[in-house]
Amino acid sequence: MATYTDIARRVYNHTFKLDPIVRSLLDTDFYKLLMLQMIWGLYPKVEATFSLINRTTSVRLADEIDIDELRAQLDHCRTLRFSKKEMIWLAGNTFYGSKQIFQPGFLRWLENFQLPDYRIEKRDGQFVLDFPGLWVETTMWEIPALAIINELRSRAAMKHYGPFTLDVLYARAKAKMWEKVERLQKLPDLKISDFGTRRRHSFLWQRWCVEALKEGIGANMTGTSNVKLAMDNDLEALGTNAHELPMVLAALARSDQELMEAPYRVLQDWKSYYNGNLLIVLPDAFGTDAFLRDAPDWVADWTGFRPDSAPAIEGGEKIIDFWKARGRDPKEKLLIFSDGLDVDMIEEAYLHFDGKVRMSFGWGTNLTNDFEDCAPAPNPGLKPISIVAKVSEANGRPAVKLSDNPAKATGDRAEIERYIRVFGDAGRVEHAVRV
Amino acid sequence: MATYTDIARRVYNHTFKLDPIVRSLLDTDFYKLLMLQMIWGLYPKVEATFSLINRTTSVRLADEIDIDELRAQLDHCRTLRFSKKEMIWLAGNTFYGSKQIFQPGFLRWLENFQLPDYRIEKRDGQFVLDFPGLWVETTMWEIPALAIINELRSRAAMKHYGPFTLDVLYARAKAKMWEKVERLQKLPDLKISDFGTRRRHSFLWQRWCVEALKEGIGANMTGTSNVKLAMDNDLEALGTNAHELPMVLAALARSDQELMEAPYRVLQDWKSYYNGNLLIVLPDAFGTDAFLRDAPDWVADWTGFRPDSAPAIEGGEKIIDFWKARGRDPKEKLLIFSDGLDVDMIEEAYLHFDGKVRMSFGWGTNLTNDFEDCAPAPNPGLKPISIVAKVSEANGRPAVKLSDNPAKATGDRAEIERYIRVFGDAGRVEHAVRV
Repeated sequence: MATYTDIARRVYNHTFKLDPIVRSLLDTDFYKLLMLQMIWGLYPKVEATFSLINRTTSVRLADEIDIDELRAQLDHCRTLRFSKKEMIWLAGNTFYGSKQIFQPGFLRWLENFQLPDYRIEKRDGQFVLDFPGLWVETTMWEIPALAIINELRSRAAMKHYGPFTLDVLYARAKAKMWEKVERLQKLPDLKISDFGTRRRHSFLWQRWCVEALKEGIGANMTGTSNVKLAMDNDLEALGTNAHELPMVLAALARSDQELMEAPYRVLQDWKSYYNGNLLIVLPDAFGTDAFLRDAPDWVADWTGFRPDSAPAIEGGEKIIDFWKARGRDPKEKLLIFSDGLDVDMIEEAYLHFDGKVRMSFGWGTNLTNDFEDCAPAPNPGLKPISIVAKVSEANGRPAVKLSDNPAKATGDRAEIERYIRVFGDAGRVEHAVRV
Repeated sequence: MATYTDIARRVYNHTFKLDPIVRSLLDTDFYKLLMLQMIWGLYPKVEATFSLINRTTSVRLADEIDIDELRAQLDHCRTLRFSKKEMIWLAGNTFYGSKQIFQPGFLRWLENFQLPDYRIEKRDGQFVLDFPGLWVETTMWEIPALAIINELRSRAAMKHYGPFTLDVLYARAKAKMWEKVERLQKLPDLKISDFGTRRRHSFLWQRWCVEALKEGIGANMTGTSNVKLAMDNDLEALGTNAHELPMVLAALARSDQELMEAPYRVLQDWKSYYNGNLLIVLPDAFGTDAFLRDAPDWVADWTGFRPDSAPAIEGGEKIIDFWKARGRDPKEKLLIFSDGLDVDMIEEAYLHFDGKVRMSFGWGTNLTNDFEDCAPAPNPGLKPISIVAKVSEANGRPAVKLSDNPAKATGDRAEIERYIRVFGDAGRVEHAVRV
């Protein structure tokens, strides 16, 4: 037939109500599941509110995104449950070389998991979006909420493009992505993984990038933080822990002394659940300098560090100095870089640390949301923004993150002052935050 | 790639605003263009309002179809112009064996043709939809307006179907259609064409049916009334004239005498533009019996008749009697059947008239909108309705159609009485109107 069209498919595509952005509870970062099990085991009654923070205040999100579309996407997420296939995979798969990393009791509980309700309103062109409730439920909103907002923003930015503009846009983005792959092919011992779920352009685009990276650099691509993409593509699911752990424990601290101990208590909690390559320290919640200065010696026994808010070389050298000062051999240790990486920074850090320390890279936004110069005319709506979902309070008490970069600090002003008094301000230097 | 999706196409499909039902001014019935040229030439200043009439009053169209969607589709039609390719085809193609059937002056005028504005409101669950203006503009609304309403109704009826339900629905409809083709294959000298544009399920479905019929019965399919499908598939564009011609001329008549002459004056007008197989008489506007009784002898010289509102055999025999009474040989004459045909009726008429008269069939709604028993559960929204767009007034005077079937009569009650007084009521018998 000269003009064949699949009429049924066509009719379906044009009548269905919602194109869901998040279609599986596994479409999240693996570290959320690892943290979730620990929260489920140790802090099942703690309440923690996650709140959306758009650091790119020049972008008026609530003007770009229709609040009803956002609600429809969030509501759709709340209808999701882990499917049987997903539960079987979580129970049967090997993660970080370990079988049965998830306890049967946790998995039984997870079977009935549902995302809790949320609160949303518009204020001054921004969304005030909060996820209040039990930490063991609200924590699971972080990634889908961010992925939804970022994809709705992409969709809005492309709404008026015709099919050829879109075809060329994606063709350019693919060519651009492949140039990065070709540069990475020149780093023989590179270990790099996808960390780009939360700020991806779209799910389909992330999938394309992950599959392209796998084809392009083979085994040097060590995996993806996205659990669904890991499952679907037989990749390693990667990730360890995040700032929410020290932030909540710090907020719960009943004294300055407990506050000072909170970052280490988190590590002890973590070690009661995980070991090996999962023993990765995230040192910067309240300043890396303070963390290293006050660290008990056993912290140096952990497998590695993920410096997340300082420039890679400076941040990495600081950790190496710590290991040396504590009498450990950095060559047996692991550094994971994941803060705003692009190919230049990956190359630079790779060449700098090659032979000095084991390292791996968690490549985020610049992998899954780089459409610079791909649109026919500059389109600010396709430029990624710095948006996060952070714990804002725990059991009614304000939560704080200081970070090594004051531009990434979050929380109540008075509490930030108190945290600075407790942890000090050493080594905290302002850097522009792009994503 | 395991999970390839054309992202650009996908994004486009889900962000575009409107899925236009009518995308070309050629997506109309051929007879509209033939009539248009005559109106352009002879009645350029006459005003004629077309009005939607839903004879299936049990169906509350305005409850089934969203008025804003309807407006968007009608408005989209008004943006259409004949494209260069279409104009070249109209000028260069052979229609009914004649080249240059359209005059250069008419084609120049047609180049700038645009559908005029319309008026719409909801009343008692129905749309009051009128197309007022110059006849030479409003006449072109009939087919797109009907096709749009019918397709919007189909879309609404399928809105909640999932992709597999739709897949099965169309699979069944295809199987059903093919059974009809197989029955028609047994009629060796059949001449049949598609007349199903106005009440089609959808454009894509009509296209499928036309292409399937062409493949299934080959040269026995003589063409389609749809100009665009004729052009795209190298089929003959078929059709001659419609009730609007005698209806407008009758409405313009300044005396009962002029009224009585109006149906024959239309034929003289027509003959000044067309000849050969285009000389087809549509006898039933004000009752076939009256028309034949009062017909001047030259009417019997025309090539054929299209009895459009009586049962095929009864209506055909009446015309054959007329030819015989006027001393013409029916075997040299042509009957075109086009009123609510299904395969049973086609078979019956074919067998009855075979060898007695030349005949052809214009197959409409039962070809392009038969989804009976195709949906998983009975879906009244997929059942075609009897909906027409008729001239309601010309130069401010009410227009009337009597028809051979009083159920198909339209117009002001008092005027209908007057027409019956002038033309008589002989031979007019009520039959159920399905479509």
